[in-house]
Amino acid sequence: MGRWKPDARGRLIGSALQLYAERGFEQTTALEIAERAGVTERTFFRHFADKREVLFDGSSDLQAMVVDAVRAAPPSMTPIKVVGAAMASAAALLQDYREFSQHRASVITANPSLLERELLKLSTLAEAVGKALVERGVPELPARLAAETGVTVFKVGYERWVGDDAPPELARCITEALDRLEALATEG
Amino acid sequence: MGRWKPDARGRLIGSALQLYAERGFEQTTALEIAERAGVTERTFFRHFADKREVLFDGSSDLQAMVVDAVRAAPPSMTPIKVVGAAMASAAALLQDYREFSQHRASVITANPSLLERELLKLSTLAEAVGKALVERGVPELPARLAAETGVTVFKVGYERWVGDDAPPELARCITEALDRLEALATEG
Repeated sequence: MGRWKPDARGRLIGSALQLYAERGFEQTTALEIAERAGVTERTFFRHFADKREVLFDGSSDLQAMVVDAVRAAPPSMTPIKVVGAAMASAAALLQDYREFSQHRASVITANPSLLERELLKLSTLAEAVGKALVERGVPELPARLAAETGVTVFKVGYERWVGDDAPPELARCITEALDRLEALATEG
Repeated sequence: MGRWKPDARGRLIGSALQLYAERGFEQTTALEIAERAGVTERTFFRHFADKREVLFDGSSDLQAMVVDAVRAAPPSMTPIKVVGAAMASAAALLQDYREFSQHRASVITANPSLLERELLKLSTLAEAVGKALVERGVPELPARLAAETGVTVFKVGYERWVGDDAPPELARCITEALDRLEALATEG
């Protein structure tokens, strides 16, 4: 198999996470990440467009899974329920990686540059979900609102799952956030 | 009055907006913005930390106004209503600048780097609003959810105000977005 190591990608992610935690994101170069992972800088850039993307490896899979779930939802389901269920179903991708997610979350929170990229990914997710709702026949405005609300319950559920001492499963954290939000929207 | 020109800040903002539209954000330097505004690069950096901040001049005023409105809301008001009303009241800051906002929005949408900064500002706004709700006695989780929902209705209302041909006032776009979201959350 020559120089190609099948787990280079995983090692690059782990090395980036370590280095960002040790020195901060700004002080770390792609070359240093590559060296710690035991690969060349060229290999780094074969896998990732820049040194931020390395922490967002799963985001396109997550988005694809959420969008598929929106498309597959029963036609009778309301937009908010569709989105909530889609977000909860995609939680399966992350459920086994809580410790990694905690480590990643603390690095992202500490580095505005990474936080910006995280927010851009979530915004792209909201746009994709909004489009999928429009394809289901939901008008533009409610589609945008439901999609953004889906991202809100994902974000808030995820924060709880990462930050609490003994949280329920991620899917449940998301569902409970939606239940809570619905209750807030109806009161008063 | 010497070399100090009182409207340097406004001219820098206008010049940055022009240059980002003409050449793109990445291809523009702080020096070029300064030159077009008729000031030195040093003056640019006396006003703005970097070439992104120049398009986010009003965001701290907006945040202060929203947070003040949350603090001043009657104690009996529900968290979602407090946040919706606070966002709508801050719309007054922007109402007279629709054309500028349209120009700015198209530049931001075209430049991922600016979009990331915009999303970071909105996320900071959500955090500040969440904190202000917690100070009002709202528990952490509903405070986060209400704050994020406030940013959602601001964002979606703002998009409509900027994008539609003859939209109602920004405050009304925000209020209608909240009404719509409440209706979505109650159906089904």
